[in-house]
Amino acid sequence: MPFVMVHLWEGRTLDQKRALTKAITDAMVEHADANPDALHVTVQEYSRENWARAGVLGVDRTDA
Amino acid sequence: MPFVMVHLWEGRTLDQKRALTKAITDAMVEHADANPDALHVTVQEYSRENWARAGVLGVDRTDA
Amino acid sequence: MPFVMVHLWEGRTLDQKRALTKAITDAMVEHADANPDALHVTVQEYSRENWARAGVLGVDRTDA
Amino acid sequence: MPFVMVHLWEGRTLDQKRALTKAITDAMVEHADANPDALHVTVQEYSRENWARAGVLGVDRTDA
Amino acid sequence: MPFVMVHLWEGRTLDQKRALTKAITDAMVEHADANPDALHVTVQEYSRENWARAGVLGVDRTDA
Amino acid sequence: MPFVMVHLWEGRTLDQKRALTKAITDAMVEHADANPDALHVTVQEYSRENWARAGVLGVDRTDA
Repeated sequence: MPFVMVHLWEGRTLDQKRALTKAITDAMVEHADANPDALHVTVQEYSRENWARAGVLGVDRTDA
Repeated sequence: MPFVMVHLWEGRTLDQKRALTKAITDAMVEHADANPDALHVTVQEYSRENWARAGVLGVDRTDA
Repeated sequence: MPFVMVHLWEGRTLDQKRALTKAITDAMVEHADANPDALHVTVQEYSRENWARAGVLGVDRTDA
Repeated sequence: MPFVMVHLWEGRTLDQKRALTKAITDAMVEHADANPDALHVTVQEYSRENWARAGVLGVDRTDA
Repeated sequence: MPFVMVHLWEGRTLDQKRALTKAITDAMVEHADANPDALHVTVQEYSRENWARAGVLGVDRTDA
Repeated sequence: MPFVMVHLWEGRTLDQKRALTKAITDAMVEHADANPDALHVTVQEYSRENWARAGVLGVDRTDA
């Protein structure tokens, strides 16, 4: 009965999201005894002005 | 002093959100001794390519 | 396919949690077209030293 | 290795987000022994129809 | 620079958590172009009185 | 009307939490036009077996 929330930059393609949520679901079933039927995986995407690392927003960084 | 975060598909109308957040607030006051004055309810909506169940994205599902 | 996360002080009884999660589920079904079968409601409880309002921790407050 | 998630109304400027995430990062380093290098601060913005206080949506409130 | 939050029942062993967080990290690197160095995976465990499905708490359910 | 959720290792003292939540509240008021009266800051602490970085749990790491 679990759920998994992925938080990342915007910019992933539909195919990437498809593969990512499938792989995370498989990991939950294999390693955490999760029942896939009620297992949710959400993807939340942030623009580069809404995420800072080391106190610097993504829009102001030159690396990822 | 609590808050409640609702995570669901996009597509609810303004009237539905109005009724939903009111009903959840009432439930918190009645059953959890919450003081409504500082009680927040947020609604976060996901597109169908950002939520998977059983490892399948909403865009690829035929049911809800 | 939604989920709802309740964040509040610790101290609710089992019966309160039972009534609260039932009432929130009912609100989601009635007002948000949710299918209850895959609808999760979680309750996360915080000690009074892990929640501040207006910059003052619960342990240092005299009200709720 | 921590992360901090800010949830608020939409409407902050880029400069406000820049200053806010920097100040929160500084607070984490000074008061919580955080290593800034892997410290993330995210800002999640809600429209006024997706946040209720005291059971009333932002769109229906006259104050903030 | 992403993070992933896993929410599930309590009861996983240390080895399960070790394998699960490794597998999710690998999925993020392979399918979401994540840089593992700043990638966090958290596991939040709920007791059976703090999670309801279909309006029924885990303590009152006979299945998972 | 915002709230801020801090996620970090367990082990902060009460005085650290007091200073941290105060400083974050001040940052929200100064940089995000927040009204402190309904501003919540929560601190969620994780044990070292419930947080991985770069795919390695805290219990298995030698650095922070």
